[in-house]
Amino acid sequence: MTQNQLVEQIRLKKSFLAIGLDVDLNKIPKHLLETEDPIFEFNKAIIDATHHLCVSYKPNTAFYEAYGLKGWKALEKTINYLNENYPEIFTIADAKRGDIGNTSTMYAKAFLEDLAFDSVTVAPYMGKDSVEPFLAFKNKHTILLALTSNQGAFDFQTKTIDGKEVYKQVLETSKTWDNSENLMYVVGATKAEYLTDIRKIIPNSFLLVPGVGAQGGSLQDVCKYGMTDNVGLLINSSRGIIYASNGTDFAEAAAKNANVLQQEMEAILNSK
Amino acid sequence: MTQNQLVEQIRLKKSFLAIGLDVDLNKIPKHLLETEDPIFEFNKAIIDATHHLCVSYKPNTAFYEAYGLKGWKALEKTINYLNENYPEIFTIADAKRGDIGNTSTMYAKAFLEDLAFDSVTVAPYMGKDSVEPFLAFKNKHTILLALTSNQGAFDFQTKTIDGKEVYKQVLETSKTWDNSENLMYVVGATKAEYLTDIRKIIPNSFLLVPGVGAQGGSLQDVCKYGMTDNVGLLINSSRGIIYASNGTDFAEAAAKNANVLQQEMEAILNSK
Repeated sequence: MTQNQLVEQIRLKKSFLAIGLDVDLNKIPKHLLETEDPIFEFNKAIIDATHHLCVSYKPNTAFYEAYGLKGWKALEKTINYLNENYPEIFTIADAKRGDIGNTSTMYAKAFLEDLAFDSVTVAPYMGKDSVEPFLAFKNKHTILLALTSNQGAFDFQTKTIDGKEVYKQVLETSKTWDNSENLMYVVGATKAEYLTDIRKIIPNSFLLVPGVGAQGGSLQDVCKYGMTDNVGLLINSSRGIIYASNGTDFAEAAAKNANVLQQEMEAILNSK
Repeated sequence: MTQNQLVEQIRLKKSFLAIGLDVDLNKIPKHLLETEDPIFEFNKAIIDATHHLCVSYKPNTAFYEAYGLKGWKALEKTINYLNENYPEIFTIADAKRGDIGNTSTMYAKAFLEDLAFDSVTVAPYMGKDSVEPFLAFKNKHTILLALTSNQGAFDFQTKTIDGKEVYKQVLETSKTWDNSENLMYVVGATKAEYLTDIRKIIPNSFLLVPGVGAQGGSLQDVCKYGMTDNVGLLINSSRGIIYASNGTDFAEAAAKNANVLQQEMEAILNSK
């Protein structure tokens, strides 16, 4: 999917919501545990109930790897279900990978070609030759960790290199890499006040923003400081939507909570 | 496995070699492609032929994920084969993971508990709360990326924060984390001259050292600057050993190349 197609979908649906599919078997409704593939059944129901309210789904691979082969099968089935039934959805493999050149190519092929996600999250620590193999895939997107939503972001990301914070160095340096037009960035909603500075470095890039809701970030603040003419934001919510209820009404409850966020987003888009 | 047990094995085998199991179906002997699980058959033959010459095996997860479900099955079979037949071997899941707290716990469980690796490589960018979930596992080890062997290491890792390079900040900061005695570090052999400084910060920690051989690093230099009283080094070699031949003699050829490295290591250990 191209970035323009993503923007079109945002305008059409009046939503820039990404729903995190972080499926924990201890948290999903008990009745699903009796099905052959509880993870996929859960995802399928959530997707069918919410696809018109969001523009993106983001499975975090940790939750699938934690269930071994069964988990990977559920991940494959989930992305195939999305690509077959809702090809207009922007899909994100939240994998936070990164390795030396030829090894990064293996990861890129796995997520962008074989599983056919539209994008994958990547860690910047190993630099240019660990990220460019991902950027080489046409009409695919590499979402680089810049400023994450957790407390540990203050350990290294906000420290100052030659008068400039590490996350700003990541933003500036990555702009010089081959096919950098395929870059997007992770910026946590819990650090919305940093967005003014961030937009000075990357005025037009899309940001994937976790941390609204459970982690305490504010949608209004993120939009105030981070929104561009092309919106330029994907706001992620996971637990607040998918675990809205653990009864048989879970998909309906998820849609209800997704709808609240979509309505807020629509109001913000209309006010621009 | 405890660190003391690893040191015992190094003394016993007179080797601190870790063999990288980075299996690429385009590079393995053609006759294996006719078997039901070529990746596992390749690994099994390599392991049976070389286990007495090394103390560790390190599958890089990228090479398994690249083959989807089949790849994960081969990874499971490989680690199970190692744990059942060669429990004295120190196993490393080279996964370079890292995510926010509860998600890192999922990764840690997947690799250290379910797959039962002795250790896993982790990226430091997201800081303390992304690494401590791995450190919480008793008698397991977290191998943190510090200074990697690739060119991209110079993009961020060697840049200076408040007069101190990023990788040194990672070493110093990580020492303060809970259960930091379970930490080891990745330091590339291509940057052996940095080891003197590194040993000032972490005098006793084990280092996993890739980059000897194909990438141009020198075993002698790494040992000169990095070896401790407890050896403190695991030297990784992947392609130079496992792809020594692509004929039916591949396992024998791998053993021959592993033997060359083991002999060099034995000479170094004897000279101490």
